[in-house]
Amino acid sequence: MVNVAILGYGTIGSGVKEVIETNNKKLVKHIGDDIRVKYVLDLRDFPGDPVEKILVHDYNEIVSDPQVDIVVEAMGGVEPAYTFVKQALEAGKSVATSNKALVAEKGAQLLKIAQDKNVNFQFEASVGGGIPIIRPLNCCLTADVIEEITGILNGTTNYMMTKMYFEGSEYADVLKEAQAKGYAEADPTADVEGYDACRKIAILTSLVAGQQVNFEHIHTEGISKITATDIKYAKAMGRAIKLLATSKKIGDSYMAIVAPRLLKEDHPLYGVNDVFNAVFVHGNMLGDGMFYGSGAGKLPTASAVVADVVELATNLNRHLYVEWDEKELELVDYKQSSSRFFVRTTQDKEAVEKAFGKVEYIQAEGVTGEIGFLTEEMTEAEYDNKVQGLNVVQMIRA
Amino acid sequence: MVNVAILGYGTIGSGVKEVIETNNKKLVKHIGDDIRVKYVLDLRDFPGDPVEKILVHDYNEIVSDPQVDIVVEAMGGVEPAYTFVKQALEAGKSVATSNKALVAEKGAQLLKIAQDKNVNFQFEASVGGGIPIIRPLNCCLTADVIEEITGILNGTTNYMMTKMYFEGSEYADVLKEAQAKGYAEADPTADVEGYDACRKIAILTSLVAGQQVNFEHIHTEGISKITATDIKYAKAMGRAIKLLATSKKIGDSYMAIVAPRLLKEDHPLYGVNDVFNAVFVHGNMLGDGMFYGSGAGKLPTASAVVADVVELATNLNRHLYVEWDEKELELVDYKQSSSRFFVRTTQDKEAVEKAFGKVEYIQAEGVTGEIGFLTEEMTEAEYDNKVQGLNVVQMIRA
Repeated sequence: MVNVAILGYGTIGSGVKEVIETNNKKLVKHIGDDIRVKYVLDLRDFPGDPVEKILVHDYNEIVSDPQVDIVVEAMGGVEPAYTFVKQALEAGKSVATSNKALVAEKGAQLLKIAQDKNVNFQFEASVGGGIPIIRPLNCCLTADVIEEITGILNGTTNYMMTKMYFEGSEYADVLKEAQAKGYAEADPTADVEGYDACRKIAILTSLVAGQQVNFEHIHTEGISKITATDIKYAKAMGRAIKLLATSKKIGDSYMAIVAPRLLKEDHPLYGVNDVFNAVFVHGNMLGDGMFYGSGAGKLPTASAVVADVVELATNLNRHLYVEWDEKELELVDYKQSSSRFFVRTTQDKEAVEKAFGKVEYIQAEGVTGEIGFLTEEMTEAEYDNKVQGLNVVQMIRA
Repeated sequence: MVNVAILGYGTIGSGVKEVIETNNKKLVKHIGDDIRVKYVLDLRDFPGDPVEKILVHDYNEIVSDPQVDIVVEAMGGVEPAYTFVKQALEAGKSVATSNKALVAEKGAQLLKIAQDKNVNFQFEASVGGGIPIIRPLNCCLTADVIEEITGILNGTTNYMMTKMYFEGSEYADVLKEAQAKGYAEADPTADVEGYDACRKIAILTSLVAGQQVNFEHIHTEGISKITATDIKYAKAMGRAIKLLATSKKIGDSYMAIVAPRLLKEDHPLYGVNDVFNAVFVHGNMLGDGMFYGSGAGKLPTASAVVADVVELATNLNRHLYVEWDEKELELVDYKQSSSRFFVRTTQDKEAVEKAFGKVEYIQAEGVTGEIGFLTEEMTEAEYDNKVQGLNVVQMIRA
């Protein structure tokens, strides 16, 4: 019998219990042993819910029970999640988590403890919800040097950008609608300003680089400045605007950035709409690949957590090596990265050409009193230099 | 030192050697040991090629060398590949292959031998080329009951359908062009009649069902009857025509079929064009997911083979369990599966409505002298029954 304890009985924690119960037959077949949820930890009571029978309020009951093999952390936030996970690993229990904040900040350290204790720490659901991406990076794309990883990693903002694109609506209206539907939180900052996507690309970059990436060093822009007029320009260019979290190999390190981008129709991420997430990967041998699926939601996320649980249950006394050194990776300055830049200005063509030379002018339907144009490809530093003196209404990378 | 022997120095075999050499540093880091290609087996000589130094013509040199840990089978076809792989496994060597014919026919049996000998038999590259799909099914989607798996699994036919769609060209012209570009073989039957996709969906179905699926029992239609007129209708419906290999869970078994289908724009596979492949998966917890990438080509395919080699090298004395029983799965008759049917007839609306009742008529640009329509959803058996007596020019499932 494999005994699981779930920390936190919110959306994901209750989803994990549901998946383990609903698909128990399949899990038992794969693991080769029975599996059950022995404890659920939560501060709250749930009168009338069958969870009552296994509900505990004191974490010590779980961490001191030698029968507990696997702890699922589904509380979110760095504390007390960090302390609990650390204690579990030190007590010789394996841990699965969906907590991106915890993994981005403490991943390397917790993996080290897991290695020392010959147990495992897994976090498939921390990036891309139900989409398998962590394990594919660690176990499937092992023959490749990953040269680029770019994701639509936040369902809230992708839903909003999709709505703005197909309905021509303004940002504020779409945000209200997303909040009403429960897709965006009352304080939407973490999503719309790109902080959530930033932590996720930090995790992915740490894994492909094999070293700790400090998410605070990743240049991050959100979608809160995107307007209905920008969408009109995007349509005139045959492009979509998506919030992309990107990491590119430059020399022996990586450059990472989170920003809205104008994507061409032939890019695999172009058609990823609504709350779906997707991760595009370019390997030096594989070429282009993409993983697509539900980036959030109770059961998809819980499905990824339980896939971790299955991996943990079939490797109870065997550490699965994950390369993620605690030594911080010095990221390449994003100012060195190149792209084309879409710019809107109230100045005239003469001013535009004085600044950028040859550009591609874009005429959006019904937009007057300003000029929109696409620059040639150049580095961020070159763009900063050239754009000085031009009155910029908007800039979006293409 | 991990020693690899490659059987066959064609496109994939030479690609495997190239990947192991080019990304050696990365592989060594992941495996924790040096890795090299010790032998390449081929009947031919390659004068002037560096492979000469490790080239052998007699398989016994490889199978009798206790230093060889891993054999990569890249010859294709069932024989002598089967005999060689079997001998390697029986000699305690692990095997990786990209050979779909071998895996579809002998997969269960070779896995059984690998299990008995405590070694491994892996075949990631046999389906979807470079796209990780076998390992994700075995290791990532383990918390889900897979209810559907549908793939664009043949790059040749997807290239042809894409060309026909975007250029309005006829089948015969596109085939000629594909042959000129080396995307289609001189005898294109295996690709265009769906036999290649059939073997691949047989492998995927065997894995999700955990039992041997006989590919000869899968109803298979190719693309050779698709015309430029069909494409006009598809465009009028806002759909694309793709050759899809589908497997759906019905009760305790699966229904599998290979056939061209009219896909709506919101389906994740709609935008998969050119030689790319993709596999759509629906899990009972995960919901929809998709894996996309290069379905063929020297380096992408070799990258998937070498990912197997890495997995084999890190599990040299440990059998990784794969559920694929030799007992044949009785597939559900595809006549029980449902879809909508797009039909073209030279008869009039009265005859159409007499047969099918309410239908959705489609007017394609410039097409006269016939009627095109979409039926309601019904089973194949119901369709067969209703369509009797109607003069059908074309039928494509939608």
